[in-house]
Amino acid sequence: MHTHLRSASKEVVIGHDQPFVIIGERINPTGRKKFQEQLRAGDLSQVQIDVEQQVAGGADVLDVNMGVPLTDEPELLVKAIKLVQSISDLPICIDSSVIEALEAGLGAYEGKALVNSTTGEDDRMDAILPLVKKHNAAILALANDETGIPATAKERIVVVEKIIKAIEKHSIPMEDLLIDPLAMTVGADPDAVNITLETVHLIKEKFGLNMSMGASNVSFGLPNRHAVNSAFLPMAMAAGLTSAIMDSRTAEIVASVRAADLLLGYDQWGANWITRFRQQAVNA
Amino acid sequence: MHTHLRSASKEVVIGHDQPFVIIGERINPTGRKKFQEQLRAGDLSQVQIDVEQQVAGGADVLDVNMGVPLTDEPELLVKAIKLVQSISDLPICIDSSVIEALEAGLGAYEGKALVNSTTGEDDRMDAILPLVKKHNAAILALANDETGIPATAKERIVVVEKIIKAIEKHSIPMEDLLIDPLAMTVGADPDAVNITLETVHLIKEKFGLNMSMGASNVSFGLPNRHAVNSAFLPMAMAAGLTSAIMDSRTAEIVASVRAADLLLGYDQWGANWITRFRQQAVNA
Repeated sequence: MHTHLRSASKEVVIGHDQPFVIIGERINPTGRKKFQEQLRAGDLSQVQIDVEQQVAGGADVLDVNMGVPLTDEPELLVKAIKLVQSISDLPICIDSSVIEALEAGLGAYEGKALVNSTTGEDDRMDAILPLVKKHNAAILALANDETGIPATAKERIVVVEKIIKAIEKHSIPMEDLLIDPLAMTVGADPDAVNITLETVHLIKEKFGLNMSMGASNVSFGLPNRHAVNSAFLPMAMAAGLTSAIMDSRTAEIVASVRAADLLLGYDQWGANWITRFRQQAVNA
Repeated sequence: MHTHLRSASKEVVIGHDQPFVIIGERINPTGRKKFQEQLRAGDLSQVQIDVEQQVAGGADVLDVNMGVPLTDEPELLVKAIKLVQSISDLPICIDSSVIEALEAGLGAYEGKALVNSTTGEDDRMDAILPLVKKHNAAILALANDETGIPATAKERIVVVEKIIKAIEKHSIPMEDLLIDPLAMTVGADPDAVNITLETVHLIKEKFGLNMSMGASNVSFGLPNRHAVNSAFLPMAMAAGLTSAIMDSRTAEIVASVRAADLLLGYDQWGANWITRFRQQAVNA
């Protein structure tokens, strides 16, 4: 199954037989006071810097989040999306918890966006899926619902089955659905990653669906998080994860993803890998 | 299933519910001209340096190979094993393709060694397994036989079944058998790692046997081999690999292995990981 995301001029394909898709997550003011103040003052210059850094780091898609308290988020998100489209040809992942912001962002976007995100909760799906359908977008759906984060892989699969039914009800093509299998913090639960890996494996085997998730969560609270994240992504890719929302500025983690592409046969004869590191050697 | 390796004073346990066991591979003159010349002259000072570096890097077991052309390998291996035993309490993996050297080495070793290695070839097993039994050692057996390297996981499993029969015939306890599932070079075959991972998974599921392998082979001929190896080991560990023969001097790869231990639940609450990187911060 292939999920196609598009900007006005570029297409990115997510699939189990494709190189991993890195969704650059940094274009987001959460936890960044100065960036928030700039955005409140109508200054979007940091957006441009963040875009340039994510692109330079090797992002395939750009996640755009403009969740700033005490602002008109729909208006700000539209401005940011227009700016991002003007400086990069990468497809966009429109990231908001506010329905009106998603609607405005989808209206402003020229291409096929990924919407980040819905849960398996009925009221969220009822509000978001009609927008996804109307704008011919793809949707990232988290494998949790009204009852919270399911503790086991099997319970997460039950939520996925519920999401699939809703997708069918709204006549959205199944290839436009990405599941977030939920990566919880291993420092808080030693079995957290095993449950995530089993969920990824089951989603691939049972449904063949594509997946994405925020991958850095697993290492929360631990020292040397880059090394933990670098070890996690190849495991998740081998289990069937097809993309992740991550900060592409960390070269170590991006290299780990591209090495895993090579190891799993999605970079035949290492053509991309060799080009990448031959270039780095020349630039060094 | 637990494989116990022992020196005179220390035990290491290999198992599917245990932290990964790193078998330090550097105590080996292959491809090192100066080291070979020193050994021919009876100078074993480099052995001591290599042992110290492998121990400092975090090896759990030490592989000792004294394959130098135009020397009396059994005599040299005995000397090296006695030296290694005198400076380190880590268990030893006795590494030779020469039966007489394995026999001499096992005779000199005070503990329970791992013998590296036999194949599934009848004449190799007939020669080596009686020594393994006599000295109560463990044996690493490669999943290939007279017909060469099997191209598929299923064919490698057929060889494993043949090896298991031979182990039973020689009354060697099954926990003293480690299988090498064979890691071939991904630069020469894009499907090489998928076949290895499937073999690892099947050996764990069907037999519950422990495994070890030379892990650096996968990246042969590629640039930035450390990053490739660092991505490969977590994948193989998630599939069921329980130990590897590797050079522990590369901190990036050792960190990747220890991160994977943590992610897979073999370092509960990250106790080892936190100690490791807290100490590194203090030493920096």
